[in-house]
Amino acid sequence: MDARPTPLLLVHGYWHGSWCWSEVIAPLAAGGRTTLAVDLAGHGLRALRPACLSARPFDSAALATEVSPVAEVDLDQAADLLVAQIEQVGHGAPVTVVAHSMGGTVLTRAAQQRPELIAHAVYLTAFMPASDTPAAAYIQSPENAGELVGPSLRADPAAIGALRLDVASDDPAYRQQLRDAFFGDVDRAVTDAAIGLLTPDAPVGIALGTTSLTREGWGSVPRTYVTCAQDMAVRPALQRKFIADADAAFPDNPTSVVALDASHSPFLSMPGRVAEIITKLA
Amino acid sequence: MDARPTPLLLVHGYWHGSWCWSEVIAPLAAGGRTTLAVDLAGHGLRALRPACLSARPFDSAALATEVSPVAEVDLDQAADLLVAQIEQVGHGAPVTVVAHSMGGTVLTRAAQQRPELIAHAVYLTAFMPASDTPAAAYIQSPENAGELVGPSLRADPAAIGALRLDVASDDPAYRQQLRDAFFGDVDRAVTDAAIGLLTPDAPVGIALGTTSLTREGWGSVPRTYVTCAQDMAVRPALQRKFIADADAAFPDNPTSVVALDASHSPFLSMPGRVAEIITKLA
Repeated sequence: MDARPTPLLLVHGYWHGSWCWSEVIAPLAAGGRTTLAVDLAGHGLRALRPACLSARPFDSAALATEVSPVAEVDLDQAADLLVAQIEQVGHGAPVTVVAHSMGGTVLTRAAQQRPELIAHAVYLTAFMPASDTPAAAYIQSPENAGELVGPSLRADPAAIGALRLDVASDDPAYRQQLRDAFFGDVDRAVTDAAIGLLTPDAPVGIALGTTSLTREGWGSVPRTYVTCAQDMAVRPALQRKFIADADAAFPDNPTSVVALDASHSPFLSMPGRVAEIITKLA
Repeated sequence: MDARPTPLLLVHGYWHGSWCWSEVIAPLAAGGRTTLAVDLAGHGLRALRPACLSARPFDSAALATEVSPVAEVDLDQAADLLVAQIEQVGHGAPVTVVAHSMGGTVLTRAAQQRPELIAHAVYLTAFMPASDTPAAAYIQSPENAGELVGPSLRADPAAIGALRLDVASDDPAYRQQLRDAFFGDVDRAVTDAAIGLLTPDAPVGIALGTTSLTREGWGSVPRTYVTCAQDMAVRPALQRKFIADADAAFPDNPTSVVALDASHSPFLSMPGRVAEIITKLA
C-alpha cells in the first residue's frame, strides 16, 4: 500500500511561469508534499517573445502590430501538455491540480479529457468556464467590470494572436496599473521582481478554446474555488458567477469555496495561507 | 522512524532563479522526492532591476554606470537566507543541496556555518572556492581562460556593485554570445526563453565574500562535483581545479565526481540525467 499523499501540481496563469509558486512550495515541501510547479504552453521556459519588446529604439507601433510568436498556441496544445505533466508526476494515479487565473481554463479541459487523473481541481481565482464557453467571453462581461487587465493590453489580441503586456514599460502610470491589476496586496519589491519575470505575450488561443463539459467528465471531479476579494483581474462577481454556473450545471457535485481577502496573487501576498488551503484538500 | 528520503533543495546561479529547475524537478517529483527550488538573495522574486534596462530611449551610458539596486547584497546575507531555506524544508534535519554556478559559493558558506544541515553538497559545474578565497578570484584565472561571461558584462562590477548583463539587448552578436556562454547545447527556443527570464544584475558581493573552511565544517560534508565538459562560463580546467584544491585541503573527504558532456546548463539540456544523478546521491 502506498500511503504517500496525493502529489500536487501547480499551474500558473497568463504571463506567469513556474517561478510564481516558489513561496507556496516551500511550506508544502517542508510538510513532505510532492509538489511540482509547471510552465504552461507558451509560458516560462516555453515562452516566445516578440522582437518589439527589446527593439532599440523602442517602436510603440511595432508593439501594437507585431504578430505574436505564440499566436499558434491553443487550448488543445496547452491541455495536452498539462495532461502529460499530470501523468508524469502521478504515474497515472490521480493528482491534485491547483490552477491560477487563465490556468483554470486549461485545467478544465484537462479534467474533462482525463477526469480519472485529477484527485481534486482547485481554482485559485481562476477562470472556470461553463460548457462550450470560451474564457474570453468572461473577460469583458458585466461581472468583470472594473478589471485592469484589458486596459493594460497594448495590442489587439485578434490581430496579433496574443494578449500583450508591455512588461518593459518605463511609464510610471502604466507600471502602476500592472501592479494594481495583479499585485495589489503584494510587497512592492516582490511586485516589481514579478513584473520583471512576466512574459509579454499570452496566447489568445487558450482563452478562445471551448470545452464541452459532461457529468462523467469535468462534472465528476471534486473541485474547490478559492475566491480573492480584492482581485482586479478576475473580479469577485466573476468568481461568484463561475461557482454559481458550475453548481447549476452539476448540482450533485457542488463547488467547495474558500475565501481569501487577497489580490489576484495570493501566492505572493499570503503563500503560507495558500499552502495551508491546498494541504487540507487532498 | 521516518523513512522519507532526504529532501532536495536546488540553488540556481547568478542571473537565474527557481524557474531554471522545473524540468529537473518533474522527474524527481514523479519519483516522490520532496524537492524545492529557491531564489537566491537578489534573484528571481528577490531580484531588483536597474532602471536603465527599460529606459526608452535606451541609454548605453546609463547601462555602464547606473549603480545596481542589488549592490548591497553580500555573501553573508545570501548564506543566511539559504540556511533559513534549508532549515524550513528539512525541519532542521539534513537536506541534500544542489548548487549551480555561483550558487556553489553560497552553498559552501552555508555548509561551513551549519554542516549538520547538509546531507550532501552537490556542485553542478559550480564555484567551490577554497578557504579564504573569493569566487571572484577564479573568474579571470588561467584555468577559466576562454570563458564568455566576462566579455558579456556591460559595466564594471566594482563601479556598479553587480555583474550586469544586457539581457534585453537587440544586438544579434551579443545575444549569440549569451547563448554560447550559458546554453550551448540547449534547444534554441528554450535558450531564448531562459535569457528572457534572467535578471540583469547579479550582486558582486556574493563573489567577493570569503569563507574560512574547517575540517569540522565544510570539510566534513559529503560532496559531489558534476563536471560539464562543454561549459563556457565555468571552464572544465577551473572545475578540475576546484576539485583538486578541495581534495588537497580535505584528503579524508574526497570529492565524488560525475562527468557530463554538457554546457553550463544541463538542467535545460539534459534535465532527466541531472535528476538521475541527484536521485542516486542521498
